[in-house]
Amino acid sequence: MLEKLKQEVYDANIELVTQNLVIYTWGNVSAIDRETDLVVIKPSGVKYDRMKPSDMVVVDLDGNIIEGEMKPSSDTPTHLELYRCFKHINGVVHTHSEWATSWAQACRDVPSYGTTHADYFYGDIPCTRSLTKEEIKTNYELNTGKVIIETLVKKNYKPLEMPGIIVSNHGPFTWGESAMDAVHNAKVVEEVCKMAFRTEKLNQTVKKIDDHLLDKHYLRKHGKNAYYGQ
Amino acid sequence: MLEKLKQEVYDANIELVTQNLVIYTWGNVSAIDRETDLVVIKPSGVKYDRMKPSDMVVVDLDGNIIEGEMKPSSDTPTHLELYRCFKHINGVVHTHSEWATSWAQACRDVPSYGTTHADYFYGDIPCTRSLTKEEIKTNYELNTGKVIIETLVKKNYKPLEMPGIIVSNHGPFTWGESAMDAVHNAKVVEEVCKMAFRTEKLNQTVKKIDDHLLDKHYLRKHGKNAYYGQ
Amino acid sequence: MLEKLKQEVYDANIELVTQNLVIYTWGNVSAIDRETDLVVIKPSGVKYDRMKPSDMVVVDLDGNIIEGEMKPSSDTPTHLELYRCFKHINGVVHTHSEWATSWAQACRDVPSYGTTHADYFYGDIPCTRSLTKEEIKTNYELNTGKVIIETLVKKNYKPLEMPGIIVSNHGPFTWGESAMDAVHNAKVVEEVCKMAFRTEKLNQTVKKIDDHLLDKHYLRKHGKNAYYGQ
Amino acid sequence: MLEKLKQEVYDANIELVTQNLVIYTWGNVSAIDRETDLVVIKPSGVKYDRMKPSDMVVVDLDGNIIEGEMKPSSDTPTHLELYRCFKHINGVVHTHSEWATSWAQACRDVPSYGTTHADYFYGDIPCTRSLTKEEIKTNYELNTGKVIIETLVKKNYKPLEMPGIIVSNHGPFTWGESAMDAVHNAKVVEEVCKMAFRTEKLNQTVKKIDDHLLDKHYLRKHGKNAYYGQ
Repeated sequence: MLEKLKQEVYDANIELVTQNLVIYTWGNVSAIDRETDLVVIKPSGVKYDRMKPSDMVVVDLDGNIIEGEMKPSSDTPTHLELYRCFKHINGVVHTHSEWATSWAQACRDVPSYGTTHADYFYGDIPCTRSLTKEEIKTNYELNTGKVIIETLVKKNYKPLEMPGIIVSNHGPFTWGESAMDAVHNAKVVEEVCKMAFRTEKLNQTVKKIDDHLLDKHYLRKHGKNAYYGQ
Repeated sequence: MLEKLKQEVYDANIELVTQNLVIYTWGNVSAIDRETDLVVIKPSGVKYDRMKPSDMVVVDLDGNIIEGEMKPSSDTPTHLELYRCFKHINGVVHTHSEWATSWAQACRDVPSYGTTHADYFYGDIPCTRSLTKEEIKTNYELNTGKVIIETLVKKNYKPLEMPGIIVSNHGPFTWGESAMDAVHNAKVVEEVCKMAFRTEKLNQTVKKIDDHLLDKHYLRKHGKNAYYGQ
Repeated sequence: MLEKLKQEVYDANIELVTQNLVIYTWGNVSAIDRETDLVVIKPSGVKYDRMKPSDMVVVDLDGNIIEGEMKPSSDTPTHLELYRCFKHINGVVHTHSEWATSWAQACRDVPSYGTTHADYFYGDIPCTRSLTKEEIKTNYELNTGKVIIETLVKKNYKPLEMPGIIVSNHGPFTWGESAMDAVHNAKVVEEVCKMAFRTEKLNQTVKKIDDHLLDKHYLRKHGKNAYYGQ
Repeated sequence: MLEKLKQEVYDANIELVTQNLVIYTWGNVSAIDRETDLVVIKPSGVKYDRMKPSDMVVVDLDGNIIEGEMKPSSDTPTHLELYRCFKHINGVVHTHSEWATSWAQACRDVPSYGTTHADYFYGDIPCTRSLTKEEIKTNYELNTGKVIIETLVKKNYKPLEMPGIIVSNHGPFTWGESAMDAVHNAKVVEEVCKMAFRTEKLNQTVKKIDDHLLDKHYLRKHGKNAYYGQ
């Protein structure tokens, strides 16, 4: 079942390696089929170089395994919570990519310092609050999803206008209209985090870009008046 | 038409990838044929690994499409403005390369800290002022070209003695005697930006190199008394 | 003798190169056969691209050469001391990998700033004290082993819960249940050191993660209640 | 003539590229045949991917071209001055490698912060003084050699115990017992410079390693009591 989506999810997982976003098994990609509400996700603990498209696991939105001989990624409850709440996203990615994870460990939002950022993210990329002791002890992975949603709601961001977030102490999650689109956003988060780090070191009093430049770059690429392509 | 120049522009775009100056579609190269005043430029939004020489778009200096099935890069008005004003340049490059973009986001000129810099740039690599709200709202890409020219003129630089600039909040533009020469300068800007960053971190009171060392290095490689080759 | 273990030790040495943890001959891997208490280790001063599995040297726990035409790595006494004291480890790695060595030169423990760290190391990765003049003059390599053990004992770490250490002024040693497992830990130490560096630069008042998050991540991957796999 | 040495010099120049020490034509290697006092050096301004062993140029110690159709590297007078004064060196390398050049631009000695440094360099790697206006105007490349020698003599270093130096505002020169040995030292300078940078950022009050650790590491690898090999 869902063979085409399994191939897409497999390809997107491999793309994480190609784009230097993961080593070992430090990441996972999923996608949802919105007609059946079934989610295809990477199996747990399998090395990328041994993985096959047919290894992808199919689960429903409650986390029941519908097809697959391996366990789904332990991060599955986080992915499912995002699919349940963000109805317009069809792919989710989690990595421990080195620059985004450094921002996560520093517990900081990533300020919009330039047009590369503004081309993809309509504002600062938020960092979640830390989870409480109770949230960590019970249903940790589900609660990770909940705090992501809480953060986006509080900042008033639409999920496709802010297709990524930094989970405090942990690392980035990104999403998009497809699995591969979510991987693309994971790569951009990484690049933007790297350049923001260096920007601050070059100018300790640097300010975010003006709102009209943010609007210009975000809106010339996205929405009904988009016209941009490099 | 202009098949040879299309191949050159195609090769120069691919070289951007080879030199790790762009990911995805984050850059573009053009070249001008000074006999006909026609410009060949990368098509808009096309991935580098699918692009063919025949996809290159031909436009005139007013931006009219003369040949090509795709739209030219959205940055075309910036390139055209540079060709109209700098009569001796024949190639233009724009990237979001990581170190030069970090300097752009920090809104800083790149000081001439060493002989690597002086071998190519006859002084500090300037950073433009930020564009005004009005310049951003209307004809943004054209105004980006105008502010580049304004900056070079104000600093009294000849375009081929300062074959690159940092556009504030955005990223680098470079140029040269050909498309490939402009790519070469884009690579050098990136290396010089990287080393200047580290130089400042190693010595917080570092000074620019003396004028006679700048003159020596620039002039032994350029102009009528040049003798240098490593 | 021990042909299978020689192949494993050879593969693990090559993996050090593949994972960009060593250049030239700046590293070594060994493994122990606990049935015979014989140790297989990289020969001394041999380049990785010329090394063969049959070049691996077999020594006993007192350092006597049992088989092999070349000398064992000069760091052999350090490896042997670790095998003598840590009965549950079967592989040892030493490198001069660039980030971990920078922490070693800075003589600093690596604080647990995030979940990537907590997935592998059950607390801060300790840095040893500097060796005394006498410890350096006589039996330097053996004393390096002794100071590693002294540090782990003082911090009350079990070797497999803290499978790596930073030797002051020098570089990292790691260990594990096999040669390849020790290499895996060497790679993780390197990544964790890189991200900890950047974390501190992004947030000068950053704190370690809470104990309950450290527990959660370490214990969901290790021990009798482990359930994790990405 | 000197076909074997030409091949060695060619191989060593290519190794500079393989080790990521140069881009474009930003470096050069030479070697001397001490029997005939003839020097083989990279031709001027030739790209590495088009260079052949037969392109290497042969000059005598006064700089006269003995064989070769191309001009020798413009840095030849620096190389020759080093060969004339340091009788025990047989290979010389110059690069603009990124970390060593950053230290050069910062005009700083590289302190001996760890054993990696001590394995190769018997003390801090010195940075020369800046050249005077007169030294730059006339015989600049020869004077670069003179200031290197002046620095080593003043610090009381034997050339093979300190097989490299940082030329202020410019970049590193290294040497060794052969062309390839000099390239090896160029790589080590680069790695040591990278790690020293990070060491200082991790610990602002870091001190150099103790003399007995410097002695131990340098002397276990070099001289009549050497025993070391990783």
